[in-house]
Amino acid sequence: MSPASPPTAPHPRAAPFDEPLRPLRWIGDADGVLELLDQTRLPAEERWITCSGIDEVHAAIRRLSVRGAPAIGIAAAYGVVLGIGRGWSPESPLRPETSSWPARVEEVCDDLATSRPTAVNLFRALDRMRALARAIAHDPLAAAKARLLSEAHAIRDEDATSCHAIGEIGSSLIADGAGVLTHCNAGALATAEYGTALAPLYTAHRLGRRFRVYADETRPLLQGARLTAWELSRAGIDVTLNCDAAAAQLMRSGRIQLVIVGADRIAANGDTANKIGTYGLAVLARVHGIPFYVAAPTSTFDLTIADGSRIPIEQRHAEEVREFQGVPVAPADLPCENPAFDVTPAEYITAILTERGTIAPVNAAEIARIVQPRRPRS
Amino acid sequence: MSPASPPTAPHPRAAPFDEPLRPLRWIGDADGVLELLDQTRLPAEERWITCSGIDEVHAAIRRLSVRGAPAIGIAAAYGVVLGIGRGWSPESPLRPETSSWPARVEEVCDDLATSRPTAVNLFRALDRMRALARAIAHDPLAAAKARLLSEAHAIRDEDATSCHAIGEIGSSLIADGAGVLTHCNAGALATAEYGTALAPLYTAHRLGRRFRVYADETRPLLQGARLTAWELSRAGIDVTLNCDAAAAQLMRSGRIQLVIVGADRIAANGDTANKIGTYGLAVLARVHGIPFYVAAPTSTFDLTIADGSRIPIEQRHAEEVREFQGVPVAPADLPCENPAFDVTPAEYITAILTERGTIAPVNAAEIARIVQPRRPRS
Repeated sequence: MSPASPPTAPHPRAAPFDEPLRPLRWIGDADGVLELLDQTRLPAEERWITCSGIDEVHAAIRRLSVRGAPAIGIAAAYGVVLGIGRGWSPESPLRPETSSWPARVEEVCDDLATSRPTAVNLFRALDRMRALARAIAHDPLAAAKARLLSEAHAIRDEDATSCHAIGEIGSSLIADGAGVLTHCNAGALATAEYGTALAPLYTAHRLGRRFRVYADETRPLLQGARLTAWELSRAGIDVTLNCDAAAAQLMRSGRIQLVIVGADRIAANGDTANKIGTYGLAVLARVHGIPFYVAAPTSTFDLTIADGSRIPIEQRHAEEVREFQGVPVAPADLPCENPAFDVTPAEYITAILTERGTIAPVNAAEIARIVQPRRPRS
Repeated sequence: MSPASPPTAPHPRAAPFDEPLRPLRWIGDADGVLELLDQTRLPAEERWITCSGIDEVHAAIRRLSVRGAPAIGIAAAYGVVLGIGRGWSPESPLRPETSSWPARVEEVCDDLATSRPTAVNLFRALDRMRALARAIAHDPLAAAKARLLSEAHAIRDEDATSCHAIGEIGSSLIADGAGVLTHCNAGALATAEYGTALAPLYTAHRLGRRFRVYADETRPLLQGARLTAWELSRAGIDVTLNCDAAAAQLMRSGRIQLVIVGADRIAANGDTANKIGTYGLAVLARVHGIPFYVAAPTSTFDLTIADGSRIPIEQRHAEEVREFQGVPVAPADLPCENPAFDVTPAEYITAILTERGTIAPVNAAEIARIVQPRRPRS
């Protein structure tokens, strides 16, 4: 971990945020509800969705009301609690095999695992909830609910802690005067709070450093325009929006000193699945001699797969490309290529910033050294 | 409209189009009007705009109702005729210095030259109209109008001929089974008819070849989705739409055998200004070992500038990025980087296809050999 360098000129330390931006909140006790900031409505509207059962959580993940690999994992963990929460009782099971709460947890985990395929945090969170449920399978329902809720809170809190650690570790990369390009949203909205790729920017900003962020708008769903630009502006960070296809020219013009993005799944060798467009940016960064960083908690690594060729890539609906908020922008029924993610080979990644330290060079040995010791392969 | 399925082999030569797609048409004699297919309305609506004076032509160019370097040149040429057409007479000049038609032509050319800065065809067409006006400055108004209208028709017809020649020259590049990536719209809608980058595709399709076009949607104004996908579908060509940021992954997946784009201005050394995003595609094509072609008539070359660093690049409004068809997609007042074009260095261009032949390798000597002999520096 490298310490943050001091700003070159003395600035007043930026005021702390009034309220950290957190896209998920649990309301009440173990029979409570999950509230999600509906990210499909931003920036026009800050509307919260209340989820009181797993169908609502599944749908919210699927339609991207909650998105970002760590946030999906947290939402799913809370979804497991909802699965045995106030909407469910062992006396009224839908199917006989769920007449016990541990069986119901298994069913809920299986269901939530089908919501999206690429982000590994989803499966890791569900595995963790499932493992706890198996360990406490003889507890009565009320006690089990409380334990599972605590576990979901722990997943959330660990993510927040990881994000702040990534911010500390990465902030030294953000020099005064730097131009930083990011893609999609790997910010507070994608995590418990503070973000992964955006965490070093928040920390550098709080240290008084002056820099400019260029946010790729990130078609088709415009998470860069709608979410990244919104949350960075809200925090008082200098952000300029650009179309995805303008990134190459920005790099060539000398205005970009580094690229930093998040990740949805990182294979054992460092190959990284992230929002479609990330791979092209990494190649362009290499050609322009610009360092390319991935920021992700260790929960985003999937050491069970050797390389990126085995990461499942979600293909989404053609309507996301052909229409915009219901308005057609292309001929109806036109075939569309709409992968949600691509895979960036490890060789294009300068370093991966995790809460446990920086992985550089990015290869299987360095990843194993940082990621494996404290979180053995499940 | 659904695109026709690819024909099965063997198959008859495709039927000729019922009616060539032409985005500009002159109606009437020298006191007539110019009609433009309003490309801001496509694909939802095929609406024609009637221009009876230069202000309407200027506005149509500026707001991209007519766009594409060759089409802009043709529209401007007709605009000069409108400038001394039925809305104008030497007896009612706006200013004393325009009381003669040749003075009025000078004024009109100066005005239309301010409509957009990058496409050189605009200035070349105006220079040609101005040169004719000076040569016939002693003709009476009626005769001059007729001569100038003939010249505008000639500019249009030469462009159509050039486009068909580019189609013949380039069609051999489109092999059966090929995947062809294009960016923005350099099709019939960007020219008198038939297109530049799309011309080889139309010709190959007429020859019965089976191939698939991948159309970058081309943010911010979605000319790929709205125009290229529309006109290729209309012609029965197999076209798939993709977000701009998906192009790199498409290349990596092996589905792209060549990239072909148009141009707005080509410098003497081959550096090429084209729609923002072209430069990045060219770099990515190089990294993936995919040939990268530019298709443009010789009227798009500007041999008065040595290299691309001197091509003026239009910066357009932030609203094009911040809003989508009037719907805000980013925080209001957010700064945006919105260059309409970028410059691709000649070294990334495999060949330039012109109506006079293929320029390869792309360098000043080859360009001079093909472009200069019959069209000396003006």
